Amino acid sequence: MTTSFSEPERGFRVAEFEARLSKAQVLMAKQNLAAMVLTTEPEVRYFSGFLTQFWQSPTRPWFMVVPSSGKPIAVIPEIGRACMANTWIEDIRTWDAPNPQNEGVTLLAETLKEVAGKQGIIGIMKGAESHLRMPLDDYEKLLSSLPHNPIEDCNELIRSLRVIKSEAEIDKIRYAAQAASRAFLRVPEIVSTGMSDREVFQAFKHECLNQGVDDVSYLVGGSGQGGYGDIISPPSTRKLQSGDVLILDTGCIWDGYFCDFDRNYSIGTPSKEAAKAHRIIWDSTQAALELSKPGTTCAELFKTMNKAMGLGDDAGSVGRLGHGLGMQLTEHPSHAAFDQTVLQEGMVLTLEPGYEFAPGKMMVHEENIVVRNAEPELLSDRANREIVII
Amino acid sequence: MTTSFSEPERGFRVAEFEARLSKAQVLMAKQNLAAMVLTTEPEVRYFSGFLTQFWQSPTRPWFMVVPSSGKPIAVIPEIGRACMANTWIEDIRTWDAPNPQNEGVTLLAETLKEVAGKQGIIGIMKGAESHLRMPLDDYEKLLSSLPHNPIEDCNELIRSLRVIKSEAEIDKIRYAAQAASRAFLRVPEIVSTGMSDREVFQAFKHECLNQGVDDVSYLVGGSGQGGYGDIISPPSTRKLQSGDVLILDTGCIWDGYFCDFDRNYSIGTPSKEAAKAHRIIWDSTQAALELSKPGTTCAELFKTMNKAMGLGDDAGSVGRLGHGLGMQLTEHPSHAAFDQTVLQEGMVLTLEPGYEFAPGKMMVHEENIVVRNAEPELLSDRANREIVII
Repeated sequence: MTTSFSEPERGFRVAEFEARLSKAQVLMAKQNLAAMVLTTEPEVRYFSGFLTQFWQSPTRPWFMVVPSSGKPIAVIPEIGRACMANTWIEDIRTWDAPNPQNEGVTLLAETLKEVAGKQGIIGIMKGAESHLRMPLDDYEKLLSSLPHNPIEDCNELIRSLRVIKSEAEIDKIRYAAQAASRAFLRVPEIVSTGMSDREVFQAFKHECLNQGVDDVSYLVGGSGQGGYGDIISPPSTRKLQSGDVLILDTGCIWDGYFCDFDRNYSIGTPSKEAAKAHRIIWDSTQAALELSKPGTTCAELFKTMNKAMGLGDDAGSVGRLGHGLGMQLTEHPSHAAFDQTVLQEGMVLTLEPGYEFAPGKMMVHEENIVVRNAEPELLSDRANREIVII
Repeated sequence: MTTSFSEPERGFRVAEFEARLSKAQVLMAKQNLAAMVLTTEPEVRYFSGFLTQFWQSPTRPWFMVVPSSGKPIAVIPEIGRACMANTWIEDIRTWDAPNPQNEGVTLLAETLKEVAGKQGIIGIMKGAESHLRMPLDDYEKLLSSLPHNPIEDCNELIRSLRVIKSEAEIDKIRYAAQAASRAFLRVPEIVSTGMSDREVFQAFKHECLNQGVDDVSYLVGGSGQGGYGDIISPPSTRKLQSGDVLILDTGCIWDGYFCDFDRNYSIGTPSKEAAKAHRIIWDSTQAALELSKPGTTCAELFKTMNKAMGLGDDAGSVGRLGHGLGMQLTEHPSHAAFDQTVLQEGMVLTLEPGYEFAPGKMMVHEENIVVRNAEPELLSDRANREIVII
């Protein structure tokens, strides 16, 4: 272990959850919501601190009911009681799951009737980037047991809360990003000609774990002669050779928070085109960095990055040039022409310009930042302007 | 790397996808479905082979339309075109995503009208363990653009296909399980008194990667003096000491397929109670193993395992004593009193008896098997009946 950066505290203080809840309830009052029902992992965790890999099992739904006043109520499978009891949540209602005949639906409906009354408005996330993590059949049953409670979308409410990170959240993302930065620095030592992309990936995962991350949840990329094409496929058995460009793009996790950035490498001397493309995307990131201040919009960042690359307002195949970051690998907002979100202090963002410098040859660059009232804070160590040579 | 087991082929032959599609279309005809729309990762992958970690980003929905005849149609974000074009899918329709104003809804609706006509029945997974991976708002928009197409649940149809694994699928699960078995064997060498649970977890992840898995996607467990309590929480900083029982339960992935089993260890000589509890759960697994043949029901396996532990038909806090396994960490069916699923050749299952042998002290044991016409095949190396001492 070569962890040189001091490890932040795991979990959060109760005051953090109290602050999240209090902000949520102010917004709920504005929208006249009597309750919110949350079904997805980041939202349940946001209000409780409930952290477990058990969500990978699709069998059991988990519900968090946020009332208009008072603490959140967990309506969860019995298997989660002990883990939930370690959080600040006090009201934990469980059912014996799995139970496909009644997978928590009655318990959830009763809780909502108690909290929202017969006619109170219930908030559910319905908008962009959200989904409902419970069977549709059960959702329809839930609605029919609450016939007089209007359902309203609370996606924007939740987004507006989650998009601003607390210093404790930022500490976790920074720790993950710093560990990944150290792992990227070591790539020229652990990667060499003749290794397959897959071997490179596995060596990089070991290195990230050595540098102190909890998990290398996300690792994509690959290599290609003079440049790479696809950036979301699994690694191939293709062997690295001189003249290749290699990209590694990782979402490493520490205490439930992601970093998300990439680094490019040239195997031997890069072609002039690849070297130039790297400088261009670096400069594009630099232009965005200088503009990343409260008041700037995501659409402006998008335009600025494109302009620095000599491109118009085409979003390319990726569709955006960066995004929010936190409990999820990608979060609201998007650096795209459609997104008029105004940057605020405490937003954690990726800056991710990319373009095709020749047919089938892309160059993508990414950094992680926090928007601050003065200069933005870099969470990832700034890449070199010149592509690193292996 | 000490991978001693020969690596299967990655991906699948086209014949495998043809067989899956053909079986699906026979069942669709019986249910009079004109098309199915699938939105979740395992289902999109089942019909296409589309494998990417990119699903971790919640931003973009992905759709697979399975028509009543002819090949599946991918309706996906442009960023996925290159990766999808490497599969056997030919009809790939993309939109520039993210585009929250119209996140593929129009393109999907048009595709469905073309495939299902104005009144054809459209299958969507709505039942147990499923969810819809697209915003609810967009689902409602989709329904209103298809006003005369009845929607029917196709959850059971998909389940009945996915529950029987092909030999190529089993090869992948076996490979993951064999690698994890070797990693578990090495635990006494890599774990020692004084290490924290977290350090044990990280050492075990390195070992699993060394043994050839692609990712250690799931790792839960922990330690406790004389026994452990909670089995879904993240690892603590608690240091291992003599008299502890340690459990590691891992879902390792190889080529997109999971193994899922655990092993128990005693730090120093176990207490009589812990040693006995381990024998009891081992015997319970053995009883289930002997019964795991075509014709047996999951409910019978459940009863048998409980009986072998001297317990009644209480499912305990976990709610079941094992489950299906494949592209997901847990899949249909469940070894539980409610599940009358009849075992068939080719089902991959976990056998996972567990019980509380003293207040707050659990013992859980798990093996992975394939149901065969004769004896079941063990995918994990069978554990010792005596708890392993570190």
